Amino acid sequence: MDNFSFYNPTRIVFGKGTIAELDNLIPKTAKILLIYGGGSIKKNGVYEQVMAALGKRKVTEFEGIEPNPFYETCLDAVKIIKQKKIDFLLPVGGGSVIDATKFIAAATFYDGKDTWDILSMQSEVKHAVSFGCVLTLPATGSEMNRGAVITKAETKEKLAFHSDECFPLFSILDPETTYSLPKRQITNGIVDTFVHVIEQYCTFPKRNQLSDRFAESILQTLVEEGSKVMKNPTDYDIKANLMWAATMALNGLIACGQPEDWATHMIGHELTAFYDIDHGVTLSIVLPGLLRVMKKDKLDKLAQLATRVFGISEGTRSERADKAILAIERFFRTVGAPTHLSDVNLDASCIDPIVERFKERGWKLGEKQNINPLKIREILQNRL
Amino acid sequence: MDNFSFYNPTRIVFGKGTIAELDNLIPKTAKILLIYGGGSIKKNGVYEQVMAALGKRKVTEFEGIEPNPFYETCLDAVKIIKQKKIDFLLPVGGGSVIDATKFIAAATFYDGKDTWDILSMQSEVKHAVSFGCVLTLPATGSEMNRGAVITKAETKEKLAFHSDECFPLFSILDPETTYSLPKRQITNGIVDTFVHVIEQYCTFPKRNQLSDRFAESILQTLVEEGSKVMKNPTDYDIKANLMWAATMALNGLIACGQPEDWATHMIGHELTAFYDIDHGVTLSIVLPGLLRVMKKDKLDKLAQLATRVFGISEGTRSERADKAILAIERFFRTVGAPTHLSDVNLDASCIDPIVERFKERGWKLGEKQNINPLKIREILQNRL
Repeated sequence: MDNFSFYNPTRIVFGKGTIAELDNLIPKTAKILLIYGGGSIKKNGVYEQVMAALGKRKVTEFEGIEPNPFYETCLDAVKIIKQKKIDFLLPVGGGSVIDATKFIAAATFYDGKDTWDILSMQSEVKHAVSFGCVLTLPATGSEMNRGAVITKAETKEKLAFHSDECFPLFSILDPETTYSLPKRQITNGIVDTFVHVIEQYCTFPKRNQLSDRFAESILQTLVEEGSKVMKNPTDYDIKANLMWAATMALNGLIACGQPEDWATHMIGHELTAFYDIDHGVTLSIVLPGLLRVMKKDKLDKLAQLATRVFGISEGTRSERADKAILAIERFFRTVGAPTHLSDVNLDASCIDPIVERFKERGWKLGEKQNINPLKIREILQNRL
Repeated sequence: MDNFSFYNPTRIVFGKGTIAELDNLIPKTAKILLIYGGGSIKKNGVYEQVMAALGKRKVTEFEGIEPNPFYETCLDAVKIIKQKKIDFLLPVGGGSVIDATKFIAAATFYDGKDTWDILSMQSEVKHAVSFGCVLTLPATGSEMNRGAVITKAETKEKLAFHSDECFPLFSILDPETTYSLPKRQITNGIVDTFVHVIEQYCTFPKRNQLSDRFAESILQTLVEEGSKVMKNPTDYDIKANLMWAATMALNGLIACGQPEDWATHMIGHELTAFYDIDHGVTLSIVLPGLLRVMKKDKLDKLAQLATRVFGISEGTRSERADKAILAIERFFRTVGAPTHLSDVNLDASCIDPIVERFKERGWKLGEKQNINPLKIREILQNRL
């Protein structure tokens, strides 16, 4: 097992009716910026619950965070915070709204020359505006971690940053707020959660029994509940299990003592940046290709995954690994996720710009830093 | 799934050589009270590592915390803290040293009449002295939670308290510090961890897939590594897995959305208070009796445990439940734990004082609050 450190101070308030807890979680004198996306919270009753809980607190609204939040939009929010002397941010929505809030919180107090440096140069975030979240779309895990992904519209760059200053103070998770989610978002959330786990699990063995089994626990929960949720979108326990699984998949827990991959995400980010494909969709397309191309490096963990998550106990390690990859693809299709580039109307011409960008950056990806531009091409060609 | 909240701000620093990190974790100007037990840390090299990391910081030592820490001893430490204007506590040892530190930290700033009220009346702890831990005995989980158990020598009362003020700021877990533990303490640690999980898992089903599977992950890890550790006391990964399992078993994670029992602990505490039996030993004795007497209430979870942890897939639910209880008893004996009162030289005469105390207090135990003094008698009679 590798050395590790684990730190996660976010308070989770989970369950039915918990939005009302905002009144106990936010100071009475707070000047709040309520941050949200396209306005779905005004249709599903969440906005009313939030405003009722906030009572007489001073609230300014900032609407219109994009699904892959734009740097440029975040800067507009920073201006308002400075103008109105806002001292508490309240994102209400999914991972993009929370990610945007993290960047807004960090950029407001940034004392360097250019706030883009937080993303492009990983410049240190020394202080950030306090914020707590109301999560309505389980997927990214942003509600209980210190990372965010932001896109610069101008240059089509999608980059991440991390800071201990950017943990949410609290996150409210009421599974009932997810009842009205469109199928596409449920699918994306399940795939995103699944791939988060795979990135931290499907590498090479470290005799790390507990982190392995915690990861498998999340995958088993996704496979079990993911196959039921579409027919039972208002089953509380199914929604609660999926919501909690998404949070646990990316809060640092299952990474403890493990090598990590993240190549599927890095390649997926480029598909989003260039072709505006949903983040979840990029993952369900890329992952099976990556696992095939990198099978030798991931053989032990793929075989273990086959047995423990999909109940495949027969065959050699190599055969079980192949079956695991097929089982993952089948699972993605069961929950309605595309698994090929052609499913989203992309053909072989989409590959070059992505490969070129990785060449330019000189990045090598994966837990062994051996996924070079040639392998990225091979991975994407596997998904035509 | 029940509503829940989860909050755990303790920073974990895990792995080989991590005691050196103390230098980065404690302010240079801190006036430290180094708190430890019987002095084993002076024989196994831990003391030297700690002192080297602390460098030129001002350190006062407080030795002699008992295995079931005494209230009276804690008060002695409080006096020293006030005299010497100590502002940081550094417990180095196992759960008893950390539990004592939590009480010391709370009692120092307690503004009520009698610090015993923190335990007997659950009086609020408004503020506590800052502290971080070096764990050397994985068992209680105290290194990553907000609770502590303290015994009043004078009245033989063993009571618990909990406070958000009593989370350790950090805990250093170096599995190598556990290489020199005597077998008895390894056994106790494994049993304590196992029973912590059972208290939060073996109740009734709540369709809480993830918490169930996380709990089962810890149990599987204990069964797997527990059977190997005695023959391989210096195998790093075995020790690392057991250490991390102990922390994860009682940091709030697996309790999320679950009913909880804790009757085995409550009955066990009385065996310790009256007859000075090791905490771990009280648990391996009481648990099988409790599961037998309460079998009907716990049937579903016992059957699930049988299948998922011990691989018992045949038989009716009731048969699998019986087999699970036998498998637990067998596991306890495999790791060298007593399972009957006679193993620790107690006979039927030990039962009355315990039953009487629960009668006096009027407490009913268990997840359904239906374990009354009559049932407690039945449980203990099962363990003669």
